[in-house]
Order: sequence, then C-alpha cells, then structure tokens
Amino acid sequence: MITIKDVAKQAGVSTATVSRYMNQRDMLSERTQRAVRQAIEQLGYQPDPTARALQSKKSSMIGLVVPVVDYAFFSRLTDAVEQACSRFGYKLLLCQSAYDAAKELEMVALLKANKVDGILLCSRLGDASLYTRNEFPIISIDREIPGIPSITADNYSGGVLAAEALYRAGCRRPLILTTEVPEYMAMYQRQRGFLDACAKLGMAAKVCVLHDAGFGEAETSQIKTQLVSNPPIDGVFALGDMIAAGYVHMALQDAALNHLRLPLVGFDGLDIARLFAFSTVAQPIRQMGARAVELLIRRINGESVPETLMLPVEYIERRSTRARRPEQRGLDT
Amino acid sequence: MITIKDVAKQAGVSTATVSRYMNQRDMLSERTQRAVRQAIEQLGYQPDPTARALQSKKSSMIGLVVPVVDYAFFSRLTDAVEQACSRFGYKLLLCQSAYDAAKELEMVALLKANKVDGILLCSRLGDASLYTRNEFPIISIDREIPGIPSITADNYSGGVLAAEALYRAGCRRPLILTTEVPEYMAMYQRQRGFLDACAKLGMAAKVCVLHDAGFGEAETSQIKTQLVSNPPIDGVFALGDMIAAGYVHMALQDAALNHLRLPLVGFDGLDIARLFAFSTVAQPIRQMGARAVELLIRRINGESVPETLMLPVEYIERRSTRARRPEQRGLDT
Repeated sequence: MITIKDVAKQAGVSTATVSRYMNQRDMLSERTQRAVRQAIEQLGYQPDPTARALQSKKSSMIGLVVPVVDYAFFSRLTDAVEQACSRFGYKLLLCQSAYDAAKELEMVALLKANKVDGILLCSRLGDASLYTRNEFPIISIDREIPGIPSITADNYSGGVLAAEALYRAGCRRPLILTTEVPEYMAMYQRQRGFLDACAKLGMAAKVCVLHDAGFGEAETSQIKTQLVSNPPIDGVFALGDMIAAGYVHMALQDAALNHLRLPLVGFDGLDIARLFAFSTVAQPIRQMGARAVELLIRRINGESVPETLMLPVEYIERRSTRARRPEQRGLDT
Repeated sequence: MITIKDVAKQAGVSTATVSRYMNQRDMLSERTQRAVRQAIEQLGYQPDPTARALQSKKSSMIGLVVPVVDYAFFSRLTDAVEQACSRFGYKLLLCQSAYDAAKELEMVALLKANKVDGILLCSRLGDASLYTRNEFPIISIDREIPGIPSITADNYSGGVLAAEALYRAGCRRPLILTTEVPEYMAMYQRQRGFLDACAKLGMAAKVCVLHDAGFGEAETSQIKTQLVSNPPIDGVFALGDMIAAGYVHMALQDAALNHLRLPLVGFDGLDIARLFAFSTVAQPIRQMGARAVELLIRRINGESVPETLMLPVEYIERRSTRARRPEQRGLDT
C-alpha cells in the first residue's frame, strides 16, 4: 500500500507538503504541485478521502441545493459553483428541491448527514428561520435570510432600471408580467423597484400574474385581455427572461397579437434574451456562484463573513426598447 | 447518542430492516419505510454515512462528469440524473470537464478517490479506451465506448428523419450546420444518417463547419457565403438546437438575410426549439439520464447490464418545415 510518505519521498518534498497538496493545493507553487502530482501518478497513490474525512472531521465536500438545475439561471449558477469548488479543492454534492419545502429540508438534512463542510442554499422555504437554529455553515444565494449570510443581486435597483428604460422607449402604461411569488423572492424586489420608479416617473403600471410561466392557452388569453384593455398598455416588463421569452414566442405565434408590438424589458440576462434580442436587466449569476463558494469556505474555516453581500445588476439595451418611428414600432426581434 | 437500535425499537422493526432502509430502501414496503422514517424523525437520529461508508465499503455516492452543466442538453440530463439518484437513495457528485481531456481524467480520478460507487460519464476524451482498464462501474452517456456499457440516443436515425422532413418541405440542396466534431461524437452520427438519407433521396447536401456555435461575425459571414452560393441551398439542418437557434437569431437580425427564408430542422428537442418554433429531432434526454442511473446501480450491485442501450428519437414538426405557398415561404418562426 502506497502511503503519503512514499509520495513525499518520490517528489522530494515533506509529507506536510503532500498533505497540503491534498487539502490546500493553491498554497503551493506550480512547480511543487507538479512534482507532487507526478509522484502520485508514478506511484499510483490513492488517497482515501473517506478515511481522511473521519480523521480531519472535514470532507472537503460542499452541498448545493437548487430548486431545479434545468433552468438557465440555476444551471449557470451551478456551473460557476462547480468551477469555484474545483478551484478550491472541494467536491460538489448537487441536490434539487423541486420547489418543494419538505424536499428542501430533506436535502439539507441529507447533506449534513453526509458530512458536507457547508451548504449553499437557494431556499424556497416559507419560514427559512429554521436554518438559523444551529451554527452549521450555510450561505443563502438569491435570497436574504435573517441570521444567515446571503449573496444576492440588487433586484430592487434592477426594477428601477427596467422602468427607466421603458420610460425612455416612450412607455407610460407598462404591464408587469410575473408569476405568483412570495414576498421573500427576488422577483418581488424587482417588482417593488419597478413600481416605485413608475410612481416617480408618472407611469401607470398594471400587473398580470400568470398562472404558469410555460405560456399555455390560459396565459395567452390572460395577456390578450390586458393588451386590449382600455386604456391600452404600451410596454412590457417581464420579471424574468423566461417569462419574456414566452411572451415573445406567443406574440410571434399569434397573428392577432402581431400588431401589438410593444417595448419589452426582461430580467436575468440569460442567453435567451440575446437570442430573442430583447433588452434585459442582467444579474451577475456567475459572480454570485463564485463569491458564494468563497464566502462559504471562509465560514467553514471559522472566519466571519458579511451578513449580506449585494452585487450590482446591469441594464443591457437591445432592439426591444430602441426608439423607432411609430409605424416601425414593434417587437422586431 | 441515538443509535440504529433505538430507531428499530421505536419503529417496531429489526435493526436489519433499519439498515436496509438506509441502504436499499426500495426493498421495503411503503408501510415499513414510513414507520422507519417516522422513527428517525421522532428520535432525531443522525446516521453517519462517513463511518458507514468505511464499514460497508459503499458511499452511496454517484459521480457525474459532464463537459459543462450550463448547456441545455446537460442541465436537463443532470436534472434527470439527480432525480433518479435521489429516488434510489444515492447522492450525486457533480463534476465538469470543460471539454478538456486532462480535466476529465482528473475528475474521474477525483471521483474514484472520493469513493463514489460508480460514475456516469459524458466523455470527450479522444482515446476513451483508458477507462476500460479496470472493473470500476462506469456508464457512458451519449457516446459508445467499446468495453464500457453505454446509453445513447439513436442519432443516426435522427439524421435520417431530419433529411426526410426537409425533403417533404421541398428541400433538395440542404446545408448542414455543424461545429468541428470528432467521429466518436453523437453529432457525427447525425450527420452520417443525414448524408446517407440524402443520397437515397437524391438530395445534394453541403456542409458548413462553424468555427464557433456562438455565431459571431465570422460565423454569420460563413453562412452568408453558403446562402448565396450557386446553386443556392434551399434548406438547413442544424446538428444541434443551439446551432439552429443561433442561425434563426442571425436570420432575424440581419436584414440582408431576411429574404433567405428556408426550411429548418434542428436536433436535441430543447426548449429553445419550441420557443423559436422550429422543427427538431428530439432526444429522450431525461430518459437517458434516468436509465443511466438505473444501469449504473445494477453495475454497482454486480449485475450484468447490456453493452449498449440505444433509445429512439422523435421528430417534432413545427412551422419551420410546414409547407407554405412560395410567397409565404420563410422562416416565420
């Protein structure tokens, strides 16, 4: 059985250095890392992380709980989290809560039981104060939870930016497209910022709460009712890019809606906004993921971290809000 | 400290049953599962998986290696894999290889070192025979690797379906849009099926190898050259939906291309195809993920599994290939 001593001898370094290679690789020079890596490969050394975890009480595993990974916001976040974990020598246990409170609690319990060193949590739990009951390292992503360090984007300011952009595009009676969301959600902050800015700018906003962001017949009919209301709405703020994409898709499909071409702003900054060429308020999703891992590792190492970290958003202008001559005005994506 | 004996007593079952609940839950009746679960919750029992892993030599962890999770095919696959793992009582370690051979090998070694019971692998390694050297349970997804059980979609037949669809839409000189792919890749099989069908149907296909599926200026100019070639192409088969989406986006953006509206078929069956309303050959991505987990668990349990499992694809017709009057013909997504 090859041991850490054999590796150290082969690499010409101390066992402490090999140990550091296993745990805090970034502390070593490129040259030392290479020497240790080569020794490990030459000898076929197999470190035993399970045994190490028992000894060190650390597993070098981080748990990530997202509602669903097959949604562009969360797949990009997961990508950034995995990259950061890999960079810092942590492994990533991925769990999905399926927007279900009981499943979320089960996943957090499962991750703790499996001795992850800490958890990154995109919580959809109504009463998230449950998580503050003990000292286990948790970082909340995309939501502020009192008592738990969080990292979010500045959703409120994003709502303001969206209102200002629609105002510049000539809109005075915007329609907010949203799904039913609880007050703790980022989408709710967006709406708050948007409505406050509307009040200041003298815009009269309406809200359309979609039954489902999937845009079936019911949702199409919901929106149509709004589009032909009197006075008519003259611009659209979708509280997420997927909702905006569903709206564009519907408008492209439905001949009856074809003349109702209105300025449109989405939110998130997903690829779909670029492909459909609509303006959007972009969240720094990758940065949120990477910074969340950094914060969590600091917590794991017993350091203190800020209670809340709020990252700036950015408005990206595309065709859907550019000034056009009246006859050209439209959703010419 | 609460032990497994306390749980057994509380639940009115044997310790063996509680142990089975921890390791092979599916073997128990719904009722027994519920009794054990309730006892665990009532007592606040915390199993110690790290210690159990050392005892049982099993970690109940599965590793998944994808090139990148922030790509619709892989995020959907990862979603299905996580759900199946959760259903079978396995935890999922997620790793990204970033399409890098060295990174992929490193991730596989890392997963083995962390005592996963088996690995689901979306390999982008030129010489994947490296993986056949030992008996470690691996299932290859989306690629056949001799000596390793694999699960794939029937990409060749999908290519045939795409050619037939374009033929029905009146196309005789299709353009294949692809990126540079090695022969082992699924995309290559699609192209082979498409070209074979073209030969049978008397269609003359051209191939346009894009430098990058991101569709920058260089790619736009590449395609334009093809679109104005003589004789002109009269239909497009994109070897992936993201490529098709980039093409549609480009066509929508570029006034000079606006009159060049051609029948279009994509591949994969992603949401973007539905949103852009183009026809596509849909892969059973979720099914591939779920079945891959089942196969891997059978391998982990020492059962034999089929060398290759190939799932059928399905052609989904949308507006981009529906017959139109000549003056209407177009990419009216």
